[in-house]
Amino acid sequence: MKISDLGGEFKLIERIARPARNPDVLCGIGDDAAVIRTAEGFQIITTDMLVEGDHFALRYFTPRQIGIKAMESNVSDIAAMGGEPRYALISLALTEETEVELVDGMYEGIYEVADRYGFDVIGGDTTHGARMVINVTLIGTAQEDRLCLRSHARPGDRIFVSGPLGASTAGLMLFLKGVAGFEAVKRRHTEPSARMDISHEVAPYAHAMEDVSDGLASEVKNICRASGCGAVLYAEQVPILDEVRKAAEAVSADALDFALFGGEDFELVYTVPENYAEKAPGSLVGEIREGEGVYLSTAGKETRLERSGYDHFAGA
Amino acid sequence: MKISDLGGEFKLIERIARPARNPDVLCGIGDDAAVIRTAEGFQIITTDMLVEGDHFALRYFTPRQIGIKAMESNVSDIAAMGGEPRYALISLALTEETEVELVDGMYEGIYEVADRYGFDVIGGDTTHGARMVINVTLIGTAQEDRLCLRSHARPGDRIFVSGPLGASTAGLMLFLKGVAGFEAVKRRHTEPSARMDISHEVAPYAHAMEDVSDGLASEVKNICRASGCGAVLYAEQVPILDEVRKAAEAVSADALDFALFGGEDFELVYTVPENYAEKAPGSLVGEIREGEGVYLSTAGKETRLERSGYDHFAGA
Repeated sequence: MKISDLGGEFKLIERIARPARNPDVLCGIGDDAAVIRTAEGFQIITTDMLVEGDHFALRYFTPRQIGIKAMESNVSDIAAMGGEPRYALISLALTEETEVELVDGMYEGIYEVADRYGFDVIGGDTTHGARMVINVTLIGTAQEDRLCLRSHARPGDRIFVSGPLGASTAGLMLFLKGVAGFEAVKRRHTEPSARMDISHEVAPYAHAMEDVSDGLASEVKNICRASGCGAVLYAEQVPILDEVRKAAEAVSADALDFALFGGEDFELVYTVPENYAEKAPGSLVGEIREGEGVYLSTAGKETRLERSGYDHFAGA
Repeated sequence: MKISDLGGEFKLIERIARPARNPDVLCGIGDDAAVIRTAEGFQIITTDMLVEGDHFALRYFTPRQIGIKAMESNVSDIAAMGGEPRYALISLALTEETEVELVDGMYEGIYEVADRYGFDVIGGDTTHGARMVINVTLIGTAQEDRLCLRSHARPGDRIFVSGPLGASTAGLMLFLKGVAGFEAVKRRHTEPSARMDISHEVAPYAHAMEDVSDGLASEVKNICRASGCGAVLYAEQVPILDEVRKAAEAVSADALDFALFGGEDFELVYTVPENYAEKAPGSLVGEIREGEGVYLSTAGKETRLERSGYDHFAGA
């Protein structure tokens, strides 16, 4: 059986996951990041692989932007757990045609992000491959009262997002369709920024938190599946920039679709108890409730969201 | 300038390395593994990327063997530092043609190794790529009195290897040249085993230690460069299995060449003070001395070893 016939990445992860034997492992395979209890609190470890052609194209990205995106996407995973990034390891597969200047440029972006958050690049591996591949492992730390797990949502929690969604997918579509202009939207795709600022603010009181790497619908589904509950999202309240709506129009697509099912915005989605909803930053976009299933409320009418976000192995 | 014109992997690493700002970082980019001081001792972190076609071939390897090799090579890095493996994260790029059974087989090998050493697989990333890529990040721990760094060799130290060398390269050459038989030699290439047993035994008194992933000459050069000293290796004392000598003959090559410059044996090479040389396990193959340069002594005559081991980016 082919991977693509399995019914999605989630099924593959279910197939390969096995419970940890070490009781210090709080979260293992299947979570946004692994969490280990240490003498000093918690260690959070995340790893992400970016493949040239699949995750970035040398046509649209400068080398510096590849470095930035590889790092910010991992910082975003640490932010989503309520942690601080500390140490990064970077594996690179380069072709024999790769220019040294490209590697220099990538590391310029990598160190720019390391400096922004104050972490160190402590190791890695450099090897040869037929295609360029970057794998980043990022290790962070978190204190117990700040740790936000996917499984911590409770019925009645309000769902917030930290900022406007859909821009990264809009940017990618502009590139793919060769549409000129919309530079700010395109930059949302090539130079995303993790929301460590919002993580600092909400981690002490948020229940569940995720970063929006695969579309809002997909992230809220993950939260609901892990927390054993359902949710409703209010279509009209999903924040989308005007220029993103215009960009979506320019590529004959729907901006809400990008927000719900597109990927790589790297904003945060978090659920907070009702009594914090007043002071929570960001945009209220929904509510966690009993039961199961994620519903989209449009003009007061609810429809169940069956589709998920971007899946690398979803069947045709 | 192309990567291949830079003069080797070492030059590339020099170019991208930057000192860590965090004083808890004992070893960073350029070492076998990163070392961080923690409240409980030291954390050792290593990462390795294996690319299909470059590091393994689906023609010679069963899926289980790919999993085994990916894990054992990382365990070997932890063993070389005097540490114990604790947690692994695995990133996989799979093509749409990848069979689920291949992934199942790989994880069979991965968990087989995790069980052998008692560590957990706590996370990873699964994504799409035009070619199969596996990146393993392995986190270990070590106590201060067992930590063995590349830079700790001292003049007068005796150099030992934990077991016979050259078998993995001999196995690879047999595969590449389509030579039948020599199953045990071939298995040294497809199912290597880290020497955690020897690491346990020698870590308390060894000065410098490395695993032989790029040939004995290359590893001893690394130790000498990091420790600011030179070395002599005794050609006649490098342990080589009879069947490896025969295999080398069958592919019209020199077994000592495989031992000195071949890769992936995953035996350990360690330097011990003279007063431990009597009780050290393994084979005495040389001595650390003042000065610089690694020399090979053959029939009492010394020649400087200019060539290094396998380098992914060495010029033609």
